[in-house]
Amino acid sequence: MTRDDKIAKSLAQAIRASGLQEGMTISFHHHLRDGDRVQNLVLAECARLGLKQLTVNTAAIMACHRPVLEHIREGIVAGIECNYMHPSVGHAISKGVMPGEVIFRSHGGRPAALARGQAKIDVAFIAASATDRAGNCNGQGGPSAFGSIGYAMPDALHARHVIVVSDHLEPYPLTPASIDESRVDAVVLVDSIGDPDKIISGTTRVTRDPVGLLIAQYAAKALQASGLVKEGLSFQTGAGGASLAVARYLGDIMRREGITGSFASGGITGMLVDLFEEGLFRSLLDVQCFDREAVRSMINNEKHREISASTYASPAAGSAVVDHLDMVILGATQVDLTFNVNVHTDSQGLIMGGSGGHSDTAAGARLTVIVAPLLRARLPLIVDRVGTITTPGRDVDLLVTQYGLACHPDRGDLKEKLIEADLPIRDIGDLKAKAESLAGIPARKTAEGRTVARVISRDGELLDRIRAVC
Amino acid sequence: MTRDDKIAKSLAQAIRASGLQEGMTISFHHHLRDGDRVQNLVLAECARLGLKQLTVNTAAIMACHRPVLEHIREGIVAGIECNYMHPSVGHAISKGVMPGEVIFRSHGGRPAALARGQAKIDVAFIAASATDRAGNCNGQGGPSAFGSIGYAMPDALHARHVIVVSDHLEPYPLTPASIDESRVDAVVLVDSIGDPDKIISGTTRVTRDPVGLLIAQYAAKALQASGLVKEGLSFQTGAGGASLAVARYLGDIMRREGITGSFASGGITGMLVDLFEEGLFRSLLDVQCFDREAVRSMINNEKHREISASTYASPAAGSAVVDHLDMVILGATQVDLTFNVNVHTDSQGLIMGGSGGHSDTAAGARLTVIVAPLLRARLPLIVDRVGTITTPGRDVDLLVTQYGLACHPDRGDLKEKLIEADLPIRDIGDLKAKAESLAGIPARKTAEGRTVARVISRDGELLDRIRAVC
Repeated sequence: MTRDDKIAKSLAQAIRASGLQEGMTISFHHHLRDGDRVQNLVLAECARLGLKQLTVNTAAIMACHRPVLEHIREGIVAGIECNYMHPSVGHAISKGVMPGEVIFRSHGGRPAALARGQAKIDVAFIAASATDRAGNCNGQGGPSAFGSIGYAMPDALHARHVIVVSDHLEPYPLTPASIDESRVDAVVLVDSIGDPDKIISGTTRVTRDPVGLLIAQYAAKALQASGLVKEGLSFQTGAGGASLAVARYLGDIMRREGITGSFASGGITGMLVDLFEEGLFRSLLDVQCFDREAVRSMINNEKHREISASTYASPAAGSAVVDHLDMVILGATQVDLTFNVNVHTDSQGLIMGGSGGHSDTAAGARLTVIVAPLLRARLPLIVDRVGTITTPGRDVDLLVTQYGLACHPDRGDLKEKLIEADLPIRDIGDLKAKAESLAGIPARKTAEGRTVARVISRDGELLDRIRAVC
Repeated sequence: MTRDDKIAKSLAQAIRASGLQEGMTISFHHHLRDGDRVQNLVLAECARLGLKQLTVNTAAIMACHRPVLEHIREGIVAGIECNYMHPSVGHAISKGVMPGEVIFRSHGGRPAALARGQAKIDVAFIAASATDRAGNCNGQGGPSAFGSIGYAMPDALHARHVIVVSDHLEPYPLTPASIDESRVDAVVLVDSIGDPDKIISGTTRVTRDPVGLLIAQYAAKALQASGLVKEGLSFQTGAGGASLAVARYLGDIMRREGITGSFASGGITGMLVDLFEEGLFRSLLDVQCFDREAVRSMINNEKHREISASTYASPAAGSAVVDHLDMVILGATQVDLTFNVNVHTDSQGLIMGGSGGHSDTAAGARLTVIVAPLLRARLPLIVDRVGTITTPGRDVDLLVTQYGLACHPDRGDLKEKLIEADLPIRDIGDLKAKAESLAGIPARKTAEGRTVARVISRDGELLDRIRAVC
């Protein structure tokens, strides 16, 4: 390995050369989603090399990362820091498999913690679908293309040592260099970084569920009534079926009224690409591609711009994309009477998710709309106190359910506009009562075991604790 | 000013809000070259605000920056750190106008010093030809387009406070965001950041001087004889007439032999753009555009890639473009018998230049070729000991003059190949004698005043001192 050619003979050689030691922190990204092979590969190699007590820092633990549980049981992994955790790992954490505590951050809080020195990465392992010998890399080339590599950019900037892991080598200099050679210490070539069928889904579909469509219609009407649907608007929504339906309805309004938006942001789906290519949005700001359409669009269109997690959402940055958002559509598993939202734990208190960009976009956007059915798995959405605070109620403006909409009490101005638009505005307490009349009052369960996870706010403060469920 | 809209009411307001105090360091870039208005504007405003004892850190002090001398005399500026200094400021420094010492670095040494903490910037003033309200900015949009903004990228990364100064506002989000909003604290809009006629020259011309052409022919033949002119080659040259002629001759060889190069790098000229667009190079790696053709090409072609000064040349980076260079063509004002090169001071010892990327590319390239006429202003090029060491002789492989070529003694392998190619190889001492036979032996002048400047190597060590000329 030289400065001209950083290709290591093997993953093991690269790990040894990195100086990785017991107790250190390694990082990954989740752009390969449920098809990722890199995290498991690296942890298995760390196990073979006899490394112990490692902390894994990553934006998201996906279902495919279940092998981490075995590494936890064997003492190879002792800590996890992430912004999202799939239930297939989360349930085991909730049941106490790891002696230490998971640290949950948000997609903006994670790069902020790195910038502030509250989190440290010793060795970053960055899966790239294309690299050159010096480590210029991206997620756009090669057979395992996944699009934006935004969540790994802060790791490349802050980690003490950076190893690019790829299955596709191109001649120097690779273009684009989403992460460039100046940040890279070593390159490891492997047979496959991921299962292409699971890396990205096909085009994500708008819901056909009539409840979801009704909620989306209400939400779109509320956006319009708010007065924010006007020339230059900016918008973000998730990849859920109802959220996509809101995007489609918003597109209909924009088309009808001749409105062009400035940007849509976040995880990008084919639905947003369609609106962008139609000219309804001038730009897409993409920290993550959710489907093939998004990958294709990012490769082909300069105005579909790859952004880092820091640029997306970091409160420690000079500013971030979320600070410019007019409207964001978000989901919820629980909402409480003060509008706190939970997307971390289920009704039993088991870990099944995490903020991702939920709390970041809610804090940044002028109008934060939560869309969710009033009943989830036959349990009321609205509770007295959420099991876990993901996003504080002060950052939520509006809850939309199929039985009506509830405005945050600080948003009397919004409430008036929505009433004027003939939307069914309800008190959040009344919505709660409605749900309970349909589903009964659930027996309240409170997890009372030791702390298994801490939820850290995007500003670096303790927001909540998640306790063991025995 | 908010996180959404960082536009300050005035430059004065932005300076006050930055917390700039007496004794602090402010930074600039020189991409606007001799048309830059921003550095003078900011220093004048600092003077009006009563700020004192500031240090100016910039990649280059150009002729248009002469007003800095008045600020030095008045105590507003007390220090300069740069990689190049035009004689119109340099001569005054040599004559002792500034009580403190100039710190000279190289284009790679500057970002390395920032990364290592050896240099600090309190407030960076970044001239941008286009910005949006959040500070996403570039040098490609607007009427004052200058192309790559690569030298300012490390400033944006490392400065405590970053102010973008522009004369062209575009709607959010600006694309491309060569420097993105996450690094920017404030935006100042001014009438004009520069004089477009002086920002970039028209197409830079190949020399017509027969001596320059002969040197270029020798150099091109030497490149070919070295064995490095083969598929995938990489190449850098400056914007001087003889250097451009080498590029043209190299292009002829590549065309004739069906060779495609991987990249050309550095300051990019229309000459290199022509070779690139013809398909003789697959990529251009551009830290600075020297002419309009380069600006146009960078805007239009993804493979003409903007790079930061760190990615260009920093020895503190994981690697840099200079580490991949096969061949570089560089100039010299003096060369000594151990192949040390001086481009800092003239024959009288007066400051008239600086390394720029000279020492960086010489250190990185497999073959470093110095092209220079044996006589400069009727004085011999070759001396016993250069007035100032810009690039240590160990990083130089070959000197090419119109009277013959001299190989560094460590490059016996190269010497053999050049002799085999019938090139007129001479001992460097013989070339020195030849020059002296033509021009006489100059009276040796040694500046013996106090130190007015320190030359710091790219690795952060003291390389030489420049003394006052009284």
